[in-house]
Amino acid sequence: MTDPFVAIGGDAAGLSAASKCKREQPERDVIVFEKGSWVSYSHCGMPYFVKGEVDRLDDLLSLSPAEIRERGIDLRRGHEVVAIDSDARVLTVETSAGDRLEQPYGDLLIGTGARAVTTPIEGSDLAGVHTMHGLDSAAAVRAHLLDPAVDAVADVGGEEFVDRELVERHAAFEPPETVAIVGGGYVGVEMAEAFSAHGLDVHLFQRGEHVLPPFGEAVAEVVEGELAAEGVTLHLGEEVQRLDGDDGRVERLVCAGGASLAVDLALVGIGIRPNTDLLADTPIETGVADAVAVDDYGRTNVDGVYAAGDCATMRHAVTGERDWVPLGLTANRAGRAIGATVAGDPTPVGDIAGTAVVKAFEQECGRTGLVDHEAASDAGFDPVSETITAGSRSGYYPGGAETTVTLIADRDSGRLLGGTIVGTDRAAIRIDIVAMALEQDATVGELERSDLAYAPPFSPVWDPVLTAAKVLGSSVQERY
Amino acid sequence: MTDPFVAIGGDAAGLSAASKCKREQPERDVIVFEKGSWVSYSHCGMPYFVKGEVDRLDDLLSLSPAEIRERGIDLRRGHEVVAIDSDARVLTVETSAGDRLEQPYGDLLIGTGARAVTTPIEGSDLAGVHTMHGLDSAAAVRAHLLDPAVDAVADVGGEEFVDRELVERHAAFEPPETVAIVGGGYVGVEMAEAFSAHGLDVHLFQRGEHVLPPFGEAVAEVVEGELAAEGVTLHLGEEVQRLDGDDGRVERLVCAGGASLAVDLALVGIGIRPNTDLLADTPIETGVADAVAVDDYGRTNVDGVYAAGDCATMRHAVTGERDWVPLGLTANRAGRAIGATVAGDPTPVGDIAGTAVVKAFEQECGRTGLVDHEAASDAGFDPVSETITAGSRSGYYPGGAETTVTLIADRDSGRLLGGTIVGTDRAAIRIDIVAMALEQDATVGELERSDLAYAPPFSPVWDPVLTAAKVLGSSVQERY
Repeated sequence: MTDPFVAIGGDAAGLSAASKCKREQPERDVIVFEKGSWVSYSHCGMPYFVKGEVDRLDDLLSLSPAEIRERGIDLRRGHEVVAIDSDARVLTVETSAGDRLEQPYGDLLIGTGARAVTTPIEGSDLAGVHTMHGLDSAAAVRAHLLDPAVDAVADVGGEEFVDRELVERHAAFEPPETVAIVGGGYVGVEMAEAFSAHGLDVHLFQRGEHVLPPFGEAVAEVVEGELAAEGVTLHLGEEVQRLDGDDGRVERLVCAGGASLAVDLALVGIGIRPNTDLLADTPIETGVADAVAVDDYGRTNVDGVYAAGDCATMRHAVTGERDWVPLGLTANRAGRAIGATVAGDPTPVGDIAGTAVVKAFEQECGRTGLVDHEAASDAGFDPVSETITAGSRSGYYPGGAETTVTLIADRDSGRLLGGTIVGTDRAAIRIDIVAMALEQDATVGELERSDLAYAPPFSPVWDPVLTAAKVLGSSVQERY
Repeated sequence: MTDPFVAIGGDAAGLSAASKCKREQPERDVIVFEKGSWVSYSHCGMPYFVKGEVDRLDDLLSLSPAEIRERGIDLRRGHEVVAIDSDARVLTVETSAGDRLEQPYGDLLIGTGARAVTTPIEGSDLAGVHTMHGLDSAAAVRAHLLDPAVDAVADVGGEEFVDRELVERHAAFEPPETVAIVGGGYVGVEMAEAFSAHGLDVHLFQRGEHVLPPFGEAVAEVVEGELAAEGVTLHLGEEVQRLDGDDGRVERLVCAGGASLAVDLALVGIGIRPNTDLLADTPIETGVADAVAVDDYGRTNVDGVYAAGDCATMRHAVTGERDWVPLGLTANRAGRAIGATVAGDPTPVGDIAGTAVVKAFEQECGRTGLVDHEAASDAGFDPVSETITAGSRSGYYPGGAETTVTLIADRDSGRLLGGTIVGTDRAAIRIDIVAMALEQDATVGELERSDLAYAPPFSPVWDPVLTAAKVLGSSVQERY
């Protein structure tokens, strides 16, 4: 076991695995190849960097390259793995300087992450069109927003890594007045808040009837109200066909129905896809959504090859099936578990429940498990759900806020399948109660009878989550 | 089943049961006897009424007597049940007008609550000494604090019910300058905040070495720092022997060691005890702490007699043993379940985990399960615990706060036994994650691998609860 542990990708999964392995096996060579220059950064923090609540790109780095090297990890930035010979256990690597090298491995982690997709929107390559995937992209958006007369480019930070040419090109643009966001998912909603903070005229286009589809209708309606109240113009049920403009600059957004809008900047956030093209010529199998197929220990079908993070599948706690839900904690947790496993302590990566939270201006939104009835039916359940709205604190205690909770359960067994929440007072953390219940296969009756905390400043006697369980409880067969 | 359902006690347990029974059996007579005049009020809201955040006593009522009657419940205030003949199923009742009547019952709920104890503190009967148990007591404290020259007695509200003589007597006192709180439990800590808001010189005396004993040392230390920073003088390890003064008015607090303090008002919050004296001449058995012994459906050993709320035992989710933890949700939940049971739908009252939260100025404190190692050992476990302090949000996101989490597990099985938390940013609700895990007999490893929510405004990638589980996980045998 003296062959090196090698991770492809220097972000959450790769570095969590590398750190854990090196800590457990200090004598082992641990190498991380990152094709770009950024490592260990927070995707989720980017909207707040653009908004200006986070000052500098460097603030979004969890670990600097120096800190990574202090852990004894051999970090190689600007190194792209272009081929995997899993029989010989050798990688072919190309450096940004144009060199080519071969690297043997004992254990390999594929942590290549995901990329933003822009298909089928035409004109995504125009200047002024951004995807917010990667810190260079975030830096370009912020540079674009700032007034070149008053803000120096260096203000964004990230001196050592940033794509300076990209940033300077966008910094030279006049600050935009009208911004179009294409896509009403996490990124779209968070960026609406970020752009609004700069005083821009923000238009959000969503193909479906509601924003934040994974959060269900009850959350979406509250968020849509919040967005409208904050001055964001919502274009729901509106399919964007293309972005166009002269001289390679975006000037206009055009919808499939023919409507158009003059824009100075467009942000496309319509989805991401796992980076698994590298595996095409290998025996390593992919599964759901073309993510790498792995087992409960993050092992692929090929001996000594693991995968984790945004490029890999995970077992869903409710369905028991493989699923692909690319989120930050999952990458960190699975990476860390694989680091322990390759170091000799076999460690399960854990399940996912699709638990997610997002801030939409002042509204805290959460979801976990199966929210959509159709998805629940497809998984073999007979879903029944209830939505309640209740105060977040005792009625007489100041500062409470309406909190809307939806719970979904299986009608016969009473098993809890999923839930959503929205509200301005400590709503987000409450979804973790439901997530914890799901992970433990609790029934809605068990949730209803749980001894949760009560004090007037924090909750009513029956927390809104318990009230939802009480109401839903009467719709299931097995309540006790 | 046409015999009436009768509840003794018009608060959370009695009225939850009565409401549920009447809803399920509209034709049945449902009677609630309350010996006092207040019904359905929030004990937990009283400190905030004294503080002034809650304007009027009436705001603390969940249901008015008129609303209770609208539900078809025959509410009889000023009716004290003085004897139970459980063979004949007949109660003897004395009214405040001096009448005596007999009331047959089909099913009976004992929901007599608890009372504040002052033993062994001498001088608790002096004017200016309060216990904060019951709204009259809260009204008297507030009346005492207000300046009679500027505040009318009627300001406190509660016109229909309040003990006006008591309130007027205290309103006539000069507003106090120095206040002693005897006891550093929930009431003591909450009242320190309330008195401080009135600009008083607040002294808190605690016999043990730390405030909030059920929350453990890690929470206590943070809270003690907070109290001190807010100007509360802490007297830890100081046993109060007596309160004394001339003319029946409290003037001085004297400690067992001889130290004394001149005070204008004293609040004694050293514990409560179940009101079960009524059962002395009946075959109805009491158990832990002299609370009524009941089974998983709230049934006593006597047919047709149930008990719930602050006067009754409950099954502890971790130990599986009967315990007595008088808290608001428990009373509501057990009352409601018994209401369903007597109406023909046998419903378990659920377990308790001793989950509790308390606000100490800006610190949110939570606890659940077994926190004390000795208690865990007594219950047959081999406890191991870890305490961590972590940020409540991503480090780069503004507004986060240090959050301290302690988790306790059984060394061999890895089963989670309990936890505590303290912090200023959404700490309280986080204890519910641990409570939910306990209720489901989760191991610390299962908690560690739970798919909890992450977004920079709400938590770091690893929520502080998960970080604590990660750290504790390495100290248990069965991690996976």
